Amino acid sequence: MHILITGAAGMIGRKLIGRLVRDNALNDRAIDRVMLSDIVAPEKPAGAPFAVATDASDLSAPGAAARAVTDRPDVIFHLAAIVSGEAEADFEKGYRVNFTGTRELLEAIRLVGNGYRPKLVFASSIAVFGAPFPDAIGDEFFLTPLTSYGTQKAIGELLLADYTRRGFLDGVGIRLPTIVVRPGKPNKAASSFFSSIIREPLNGQEAALPVSEDVRHWFASPRAAVGFLVHAAGLANERIGARINLTMPGLCCTVGEEIAALARVAGADVARRIRREPDETIAKIVAGWPQNFDARRATALGFRAETSFDDIIRAHIEDELGGRVA
Amino acid sequence: MHILITGAAGMIGRKLIGRLVRDNALNDRAIDRVMLSDIVAPEKPAGAPFAVATDASDLSAPGAAARAVTDRPDVIFHLAAIVSGEAEADFEKGYRVNFTGTRELLEAIRLVGNGYRPKLVFASSIAVFGAPFPDAIGDEFFLTPLTSYGTQKAIGELLLADYTRRGFLDGVGIRLPTIVVRPGKPNKAASSFFSSIIREPLNGQEAALPVSEDVRHWFASPRAAVGFLVHAAGLANERIGARINLTMPGLCCTVGEEIAALARVAGADVARRIRREPDETIAKIVAGWPQNFDARRATALGFRAETSFDDIIRAHIEDELGGRVA
Repeated sequence: MHILITGAAGMIGRKLIGRLVRDNALNDRAIDRVMLSDIVAPEKPAGAPFAVATDASDLSAPGAAARAVTDRPDVIFHLAAIVSGEAEADFEKGYRVNFTGTRELLEAIRLVGNGYRPKLVFASSIAVFGAPFPDAIGDEFFLTPLTSYGTQKAIGELLLADYTRRGFLDGVGIRLPTIVVRPGKPNKAASSFFSSIIREPLNGQEAALPVSEDVRHWFASPRAAVGFLVHAAGLANERIGARINLTMPGLCCTVGEEIAALARVAGADVARRIRREPDETIAKIVAGWPQNFDARRATALGFRAETSFDDIIRAHIEDELGGRVA
Repeated sequence: MHILITGAAGMIGRKLIGRLVRDNALNDRAIDRVMLSDIVAPEKPAGAPFAVATDASDLSAPGAAARAVTDRPDVIFHLAAIVSGEAEADFEKGYRVNFTGTRELLEAIRLVGNGYRPKLVFASSIAVFGAPFPDAIGDEFFLTPLTSYGTQKAIGELLLADYTRRGFLDGVGIRLPTIVVRPGKPNKAASSFFSSIIREPLNGQEAALPVSEDVRHWFASPRAAVGFLVHAAGLANERIGARINLTMPGLCCTVGEEIAALARVAGADVARRIRREPDETIAKIVAGWPQNFDARRATALGFRAETSFDDIIRAHIEDELGGRVA
């Protein structure tokens, strides 16, 4: 099997290639080679038991998407995107990368022709939904994004569904919860603080909390996100049906509950490293975000997420900190 | 006031300019000039009390959209589109006209800058919805198009909402019911028969019915559609809120009820001019279409449609046949 990962240099992309290397398979199918594509050349993983190539290119640039699919990858994980905060700050860049880049990839696949019909797993986002919401957002709630990022993801979902229906590819869109705890540094996503208030204290550092503790949101760990991607790649399209875009399961909890879980898992001293620094811009963006879902379809299709924030923190400590807390 | 109408050579475009000429105003505001744009130069209406210019151009062609908005029209009616059957038959043309053309228009408006923020009324369609449906589709039901045309309209809605939110324009998307009775000849829309089974018999001709009489659908007259466009242009964005795309009110009835109304209004002999000619391709497309809506928001905002199919037929006889039946 030949796999293409776009956005492979990003956090989820690196976690995904790490898992493929460990499993030496994708859903029990042997992997021949993997192409890692991103705007900067992704690092090759150590000790891969299959061929790994890397490519630095911008899918929205003329010809780039055609080159990415010229070897007819069987499975494509399309993760390439700029994040919500950046897409809001730079309108043109957001549309170029998230809208044009996705369209170019779909068009390049269509134009390969000759019966080429890859499995395409599209990383969408709960940002396709915008307030006001019902108590729990069901699988038939309408797409009402309140950010340019959410708009671009919603358009990607619609295109993916139409290209699938027309037989150009076998698409599945998975709406990822907000992923916590992200390793590494804070990024420009407005959601960055959900991770940093856990990650920094676990590293012995202070972290700023820009919103109030009663802010409620929808989470899954990076480990669960990679699990969603792998599971999606193995789902037969007949099982999914015509409505190929799925809200992933997740954990609904408040910032206060995040902090309480941190105190339980790592101690009250660690949790005291969180500083309250209200930021109205971030608070306003987050207020438009969904808080809770009823992810019935995805759950019935076998997708699984954590069921407590303690487990999300423990996954981070195991996967990123070698099991130790500073 | 300066008005731009794209797709002005189409049926709704011609009806709209006809009404503007008759009213000599748009919602009681005086009209200085109207630009009629389409892929072929639209005809100028007779006796217009304001300046009318025409332009033959393809909005998806480089520079065309910029030229269309260079005079900063205050109100834009964006009607340009190819119909569902053609967008399904010609994938590339459908995306070029309905997807790229709409995006280019929005981009051209954004790039005018200098505080330019026109009112943009976008003619969307109930084709943004695809089966299975609830008994009546509410205002929060999700977009699940099952045609490329419906996908392109749904994407247009999402872009319109984001460009509005960002302050580049004041958009309102109106999801038109299937418009009956269309004057003129059958077109390539799969919905064409809903009109021809009324129009041809009223003209003394036979008409083919490709689906069964229990097919249920959602209708409004051309007169009502023009009413929606005019009303939408006069709605302040504050009244609409963030969710700017609205399902228009309409009439839910079956093909059998259409035929019964024809017999009531024009006589049983006229209704007997309908020939049953089942067409599986059309039946399959129509089976994926919505049948009934609860258009609560649009109704609350003052949009009005016919409440009986008899009225729809009478509007056709008055507006197209000078009040006479053959």
